[in-house]
Amino acid sequence: VSERWRYRAELAYVGTEFHGWQRQRNADRTVQALLEAALAKFARTPVVAVAAGRTDAGVHADGQVVHFDLPAPREPDRIRTAVNALLPWDAKLLSVTPADPGFHARRDALWKEYLYRWSRAAVIPPRDAPFVARIGAAADPGLMAAVVAGLPGTRDFAVFASRHPAGEPTVRTLHAATIESAGDEISLLLRGDGFLRGMVRAIAGVLADLGRGAVPPGRIDELLRTGDRRLLRPKAPARGLTLSRVHYGLN
Amino acid sequence: VSERWRYRAELAYVGTEFHGWQRQRNADRTVQALLEAALAKFARTPVVAVAAGRTDAGVHADGQVVHFDLPAPREPDRIRTAVNALLPWDAKLLSVTPADPGFHARRDALWKEYLYRWSRAAVIPPRDAPFVARIGAAADPGLMAAVVAGLPGTRDFAVFASRHPAGEPTVRTLHAATIESAGDEISLLLRGDGFLRGMVRAIAGVLADLGRGAVPPGRIDELLRTGDRRLLRPKAPARGLTLSRVHYGLN
Repeated sequence: VSERWRYRAELAYVGTEFHGWQRQRNADRTVQALLEAALAKFARTPVVAVAAGRTDAGVHADGQVVHFDLPAPREPDRIRTAVNALLPWDAKLLSVTPADPGFHARRDALWKEYLYRWSRAAVIPPRDAPFVARIGAAADPGLMAAVVAGLPGTRDFAVFASRHPAGEPTVRTLHAATIESAGDEISLLLRGDGFLRGMVRAIAGVLADLGRGAVPPGRIDELLRTGDRRLLRPKAPARGLTLSRVHYGLN
Repeated sequence: VSERWRYRAELAYVGTEFHGWQRQRNADRTVQALLEAALAKFARTPVVAVAAGRTDAGVHADGQVVHFDLPAPREPDRIRTAVNALLPWDAKLLSVTPADPGFHARRDALWKEYLYRWSRAAVIPPRDAPFVARIGAAADPGLMAAVVAGLPGTRDFAVFASRHPAGEPTVRTLHAATIESAGDEISLLLRGDGFLRGMVRAIAGVLADLGRGAVPPGRIDELLRTGDRRLLRPKAPARGLTLSRVHYGLN
């Protein structure tokens, strides 16, 4: 019997140069592949890392949560320091804590929070450009806010999913959906028990066009009611999206 | 007689991948070289760009100011848009305005403002890492603030200059020097009529060691009084430094 010690870690990354979270069969640079390589080097044995949310290529994380097992107990801060020294600058463990052997980063998450950022500025300053998508100066945050206010609830979000596996459930509960606006920036915050693949960017894409009057305000309702993907707008760019937080209750 | 039309532009860049502002004889990637190449392509003639501050390799700018001449008058927003399309993601013109033919971005600047950022966090989140230097958790911003409060005035700052041309004046006037602290971050703001090469990072290097008690609080005074460069600490890393603003009075 080989014993395993489970750890939970909070992870932040700048998604720009990653082909998303998930390890690929090819040599693509993914967060999971680099984290698992660093963990394996530290533990001197292969290690699998499981994330709360499988972010797509170009999507950022401020508070991704992962779990992994080590063959021997290690001091958490020592794990963090050693693994961070093996990770590239654009992905770092923010914290490591011992976890219950049954803890599962994805299945135990009560809710996740995604933030989508746009800027109405004529020029987005370079330091913000990797994290903010452009939106026309005429975009109306008040209109966008009014539309998203009606979004929370338990619904079938299938119309917003890209490449969803047939037969798998597409009903999710959105706990909160808000638009904030400050200066040139408009941001969308979605908090929910789960998100279908591509769902946040699909909603953001419709909202952006709706904010500038290019689609009617009722378009999101219409999409949910009809499930007609032809009513979608192009997905909002990945760079505007950040997985900001994963919540697990008191455990 | 070939007439010239002068323009003034505000420029922001992420310094990480640049070998500083100034064009080099070799093929190093510098902001000036790329901006001049973009302007030349736009104007179909060689264009020289003059900056308010010649930032070093790795130093950022939020509000660098440059001037340049074009052989024919062009709509300022059109210049900005066309040149930005020719610039890489990490350097962009924020604004372009017509300028008096005698306007000079460096000589006419009344004061410049530099910001140096440190973090006391055990892990600096990747999105901040390119802009923030590490400082020990024990660093005391109150002590640093007390020391910099005595810095404004007209003084010979030669001791803080790296590779200063012999015979050139080294007296500068610092209008303001403040330390701010918020959460894990400590930042130093210096505003002055001019800065010697390497001066901000040399001062920041002493301050960082002073903040953690590694050098006595009187060290900056001692450096200014004795001019003894052996009392210096290593310069603070370039990545923490940003040229934040250049001021020209009412013109």
